[in-house]
Amino acid sequence: MGYSEFTIEGRNAVIEAFRSGKTVDKLYVLDGCQDGPIMTIKREARKQDTLVKYVTKERLDQLSETGKHQGVIAVAAAYEYAQVEDILQAAKDKGEAPFIMLLDNIEDPHNLGAIIRTANLAGCHGVIIPKNRAVGLTATVARTSAGALNYTPVAKVTNIANTIEDLKKEGLWFVCADMGGTSMYQLDLKGPIGLVVGNEGDGVSRLVREKCDFVASIPMKGDIDSLNASVAAGVLAYEIVRQRLS
Amino acid sequence: MGYSEFTIEGRNAVIEAFRSGKTVDKLYVLDGCQDGPIMTIKREARKQDTLVKYVTKERLDQLSETGKHQGVIAVAAAYEYAQVEDILQAAKDKGEAPFIMLLDNIEDPHNLGAIIRTANLAGCHGVIIPKNRAVGLTATVARTSAGALNYTPVAKVTNIANTIEDLKKEGLWFVCADMGGTSMYQLDLKGPIGLVVGNEGDGVSRLVREKCDFVASIPMKGDIDSLNASVAAGVLAYEIVRQRLS
Repeated sequence: MGYSEFTIEGRNAVIEAFRSGKTVDKLYVLDGCQDGPIMTIKREARKQDTLVKYVTKERLDQLSETGKHQGVIAVAAAYEYAQVEDILQAAKDKGEAPFIMLLDNIEDPHNLGAIIRTANLAGCHGVIIPKNRAVGLTATVARTSAGALNYTPVAKVTNIANTIEDLKKEGLWFVCADMGGTSMYQLDLKGPIGLVVGNEGDGVSRLVREKCDFVASIPMKGDIDSLNASVAAGVLAYEIVRQRLS
Repeated sequence: MGYSEFTIEGRNAVIEAFRSGKTVDKLYVLDGCQDGPIMTIKREARKQDTLVKYVTKERLDQLSETGKHQGVIAVAAAYEYAQVEDILQAAKDKGEAPFIMLLDNIEDPHNLGAIIRTANLAGCHGVIIPKNRAVGLTATVARTSAGALNYTPVAKVTNIANTIEDLKKEGLWFVCADMGGTSMYQLDLKGPIGLVVGNEGDGVSRLVREKCDFVASIPMKGDIDSLNASVAAGVLAYEIVRQRLS
């Protein structure tokens, strides 16, 4: 596991990278280059808010690893996902009851990064995200995680509800954060646990919620509906930390 | 108190708004207009990531309140700050011991918005921010606060350390979040309290830290240095909520 960057060189490769949804962190374009394919690349870059730098041919040659950059080099993020088994193994290696965060469709990369950062510091053994719809491990996530992505394993699964079923066989209990549940202060959150955090707008999906053993609520005294997703994840994760420490 | 939007019309007024640091939420520009002042405005808008919409003269005339838009209308955020006294009064009105968050130079508007959102739900009576350097109540903050800015009073003060001194006279205790303090689970955080949250990179400034009665630490089990500022604020605020409830 680990996070690194790699370069994509040449016009077709760079266009393909953008179109396949790869997150391009930075784009180097030959200064003054204005032809069709370059304009297409610049348009894609604008859509994704990619940082574009206009550089000389000498600088591009220097940056190029293949020597065939055709006036454009993209710097993209590469992250090797972990397996769910790796996360369980990490807990076993530390001699601790597993503590895992499962994210049911977090969409905002800043939230995902902040949650991985929290997972690392709260002593979670790993984070599980779904393959579809949700945001993956992009460069923004890596940056927002403040380095945590290099330490905390993140696994990508096809179906969160099925993964919960599998992990129950390993002895884990599941608690999801949602309104209308039991106050988190009244739940016993010790032991092997999976904390499920829902989508920013819609919360935890019905199917996933049904698989959970408990629904935990954060006491709300205010006028608005809900905390920011990464703040809610942090507050719940630290209630688990508190109970584990006591 | 409350949050609203207003329009700024005409080239000089709009340029001035950008240069004075006002957060422009949206910019309407006459389609096809390319002269010097308009290019300057578009450059400022790009710097601030302002949404730019190109519209017809008819649409601009419709949006204009003065009838003198000169091809450009900016939509900016207006927020009326509260006074520190208003926050104390809010606590008194509810018959509760004051619970205030003081932000020692939060720079990221997303963090500020998320913290105001947390303050609202954790039952804080208000938030205090410093006049200089830190981010103010921009449109991004209003958006990220998810409406909390309409309910939770925010006061702006010249000097956080002096404000702490003044509030001590009102019977408040101050706790700041920082490394190397006492575990937050071991501190008595009941009673009239001010929670001080530091800057994203530098933490709480020395002068402010010295004014605090306690330094509270969030237990850290991981490999990286610190939580995201809004997550840390949430975790600490909810430890105060827990102690107040118990």
